[in-house]
Parts: sequence; C-alpha cells; structure tokens
Amino acid sequence: MKQRSPMRLKILWPGKTRSREWKTLQEFYLARIRQLEPCELVEVKEAKGLEDWQAEKVMQIEAKNLEKHLRDDYIICLLDRGKEMSSEDLARFIGERMASPRPTAFIVGGFAGLAAGVLERADLRLSLSRMTFSHELCRVALLEQLYRALTILKGKHYAK
Amino acid sequence: MKQRSPMRLKILWPGKTRSREWKTLQEFYLARIRQLEPCELVEVKEAKGLEDWQAEKVMQIEAKNLEKHLRDDYIICLLDRGKEMSSEDLARFIGERMASPRPTAFIVGGFAGLAAGVLERADLRLSLSRMTFSHELCRVALLEQLYRALTILKGKHYAK
Repeated sequence: MKQRSPMRLKILWPGKTRSREWKTLQEFYLARIRQLEPCELVEVKEAKGLEDWQAEKVMQIEAKNLEKHLRDDYIICLLDRGKEMSSEDLARFIGERMASPRPTAFIVGGFAGLAAGVLERADLRLSLSRMTFSHELCRVALLEQLYRALTILKGKHYAK
Repeated sequence: MKQRSPMRLKILWPGKTRSREWKTLQEFYLARIRQLEPCELVEVKEAKGLEDWQAEKVMQIEAKNLEKHLRDDYIICLLDRGKEMSSEDLARFIGERMASPRPTAFIVGGFAGLAAGVLERADLRLSLSRMTFSHELCRVALLEQLYRALTILKGKHYAK
C-alpha cells in the first residue's frame, strides 16, 4: 500500500475559532491557500475551565497538546517580538521551505499566548506586527499572508 | 446655539467595506471604541468604474475625496513601510493626541493604496505590519488596535 506523504504545510493553534466572522474569514483564506498548496489546519485541544489569571497553566496544557502533533517539523511560532518580513520575503521563505521534505508547521497561540517551551523549540519566531494582535486577528492575518505568499510564489493573481 | 465641538478621533477610508464578515468585525470594534471615546468613521467616495491597472488614477480621485474631509487634522496614514509601534506605544501616543484640541485622523487606503500627495501631507506614517495586508484586514486591524490602545489608556479590561 502506498504510504500517504505527510502534508508539508501545517498550521496549528489551540481551540476552535468561536466568532462566526473570524471563522468564516479563516475558512475563506484556507480554501484559497488550498487551491495553491495542500495545507492542514490542526485546531488542537485547548485548556478549559481555567481563568484569565491562570494563563501560565493554560499555556502549559496547550503546549502539551500542540506537541502531540509535531514530529520533525520546521516550527514557526508567531510572536510579536519575532522576526519581521515583508510579504515578498515571506513568499521567498515559503518557497525555500516547500522545497524541503521536512514539513513546515506554523503555530499561533491561544488567548494566553505560547509557553516558553514551545517558543524555544521553534526554528523561527515570526512577527506579523510589533503590535499585540488578538489571537483571532493573528490567525486570519497569518492565513491572508500565507495566501498572499503563495500567489506571489506561484505568480497567481491575488483574488480579492 | 451651542456649537458642536469637532470629533477629536476620526478614521477615514475610501469606499464602504463590502465583505459582510469584515464589515461586522469593523462595526464590532468601532462600537467598542465608541464606548471609550467618541470616534467618527468617514467612508469617503471611492473611485468607481476603473480597472486594476488604473491604480494611480484611483489613488488620485480618492485623495481628492479624502482631502474634502480634512482640515487642520493631525493626519496619520497607514503604510507598511511606516513607523512601527508596540500596542503600548500606540496607547501612549493616542493619549498625547487626545490631550490636543487638534483632531486626529487615521487614513487607510483603498485597494490601490494611498496617493503620494496624501502620504506626504501626513504628520505620521504608521505601520501595522511590514507585510502587505489587504485593505479590509488593515481596517479591522487598525480598529482592533485603537480599541486595545484605549483600553490600555483608560485602564479598562480588553473585552474579548
């Protein structure tokens, strides 16, 4: 039996997006990405029943759940203080990553953020903005940028 | 008759946001901003009937329409190559601006971007990201950041 090759482009985050509008936009960009490149979205189990002040515990639980889905992936964590790129830089970078057999996994934190252990394990910490975006905004901005990067990379028209 | 004082916080952009999801998110953050600070959104007339390749003409027409709504405002144009700030920096900056009687006007371009003349007239060119965001994403990201800045400034809880 032919073994299915693992998806080379993965996106992981804890919990499902609850807001209907953010979720629709998420699906909109994900569908456009998938027209250009296979892409797996893994919404891992989020920490439940904890309060806002228990952010550290939330991050620890979510780190464990994220790690269950990671193997030898090239890990890119989204972090406001991370490396900045233009959309063209990101396109070039994705192009290089797609040429590697090692899967590329983008990780976006939940409302509490990402645990230090996950950030330390990352091959790249990527910044979408020096500003602190809400995690929903961050997810959709990442998807919009991945779609844009793939259109640049493949010389396609960005469909508005 | 008492004269109505001009709104100190204004946001301007060409055209109405068409996508239902982006529009709902726009209204969501605008309503939250207005709970903390009066804020006027002016969706100025957009250039119509022009093609993608006529971007320069689109920007010129929209620049004229934007200028009709500007007086002695402190103008902040959103530009990817502009000045970067953290959310805390933006909060401090908005605090300083709100202490001035001169209104503050944020301007977001349309799909074609902002004409050089508008960018030159700006007191500040502010970057939300080094990446090129779609104009809809840019609008909602700006509103989310203004809401976040006002919650920081006024010591309020950021309502998710």
